Amino acid sequence: MGRGEAPVEITEIVRLLGRLPGFGRRSARRAILHLLKHRDGLMRPLGQALLDAADQVSTCSRCGNLDTEDPCGICRDPERDQRQICVVKEVADLWALERSATYRGLYHVTGGLLSALDGIGPDDLNIPMLCRRAEQPEVEEVILAMDATVDGQITAHYLVESLAGCGVTVTRLARGVPVGGELEYLDDGTLSQALEARRTM
Amino acid sequence: MGRGEAPVEITEIVRLLGRLPGFGRRSARRAILHLLKHRDGLMRPLGQALLDAADQVSTCSRCGNLDTEDPCGICRDPERDQRQICVVKEVADLWALERSATYRGLYHVTGGLLSALDGIGPDDLNIPMLCRRAEQPEVEEVILAMDATVDGQITAHYLVESLAGCGVTVTRLARGVPVGGELEYLDDGTLSQALEARRTM
Repeated sequence: MGRGEAPVEITEIVRLLGRLPGFGRRSARRAILHLLKHRDGLMRPLGQALLDAADQVSTCSRCGNLDTEDPCGICRDPERDQRQICVVKEVADLWALERSATYRGLYHVTGGLLSALDGIGPDDLNIPMLCRRAEQPEVEEVILAMDATVDGQITAHYLVESLAGCGVTVTRLARGVPVGGELEYLDDGTLSQALEARRTM
Repeated sequence: MGRGEAPVEITEIVRLLGRLPGFGRRSARRAILHLLKHRDGLMRPLGQALLDAADQVSTCSRCGNLDTEDPCGICRDPERDQRQICVVKEVADLWALERSATYRGLYHVTGGLLSALDGIGPDDLNIPMLCRRAEQPEVEEVILAMDATVDGQITAHYLVESLAGCGVTVTRLARGVPVGGELEYLDDGTLSQALEARRTM
């Protein structure tokens, strides 16, 4: 930061914040000034919350969700439908589905998608555990909620093969016009899939 | 986050991160997952650094800079030119000037700009201290490095009046074509000021 630089206590936070996704040096500098203006309401609680969560949050050994207990709250909840397992690539997707408040079954987090470009193969993902869970007698359906991207679909196809013989129905999310979507701006692939999968009203 | 919600340890961090400027809930959720994947390299150091800085960093009682000591490193540096005081609205501007590595004098941080809209008057800014500093016999020049915005210019004019009678020369930053600026895309005000202030080559 030049010769009359900020103290190392500040530059260190700028450096660390700058490593967060979507956060550059400039936003990090704005953030640290904001934090220093709100020490008791924001800066200290955030620091303490980060330390606490780093110690207390762990990955569920069954489904890969993040929680303070293992198995996680969803796996332990007897009201969740034990017959369904919804496969997502990461916890953020699980959170998104939970926010939609439609799904009441269990989850399985693979920890990523197969990607030839990024060198991510089946051994890098949490797939063997999924096959073991799918073989349990109570499980009837595995829902593949993967991204509608190339890597997402390759992963979905791989999972269909891996789950063959487990005695479960494997389904995937519907494709179609997103809520609020305007036809004019939809891509051809979405439009043609929405047309093919049309429903009687 | 729905019924199978993330543990409170995580939602609390999402809430706090979401209060940083330029950070919404969505980026906060991405950030917390990134943090949990890098606990030892990023999450714990960031938490500890925030707690440390909240305790150790304070505002320099002379110039308004942020440092772990008071007066700050710049005010205490005998090699800085004691004849010049550069006035900026906040510490981020001081850092920007320090990065440019051109200025070797002292600073004064007002803590904001006069703003009728935001209800910020002279009493809300650190101006009396600036006048006292400008009256010191060693001070020869006060450089107003305020934004070239309406509020910045109103503040600069107010400071010129406040500093009248302190026996200092009051200057402001030059206006003109920014480095890398293409004439075609410059606004009329910048162009006309650059033309008026043209220099012999």
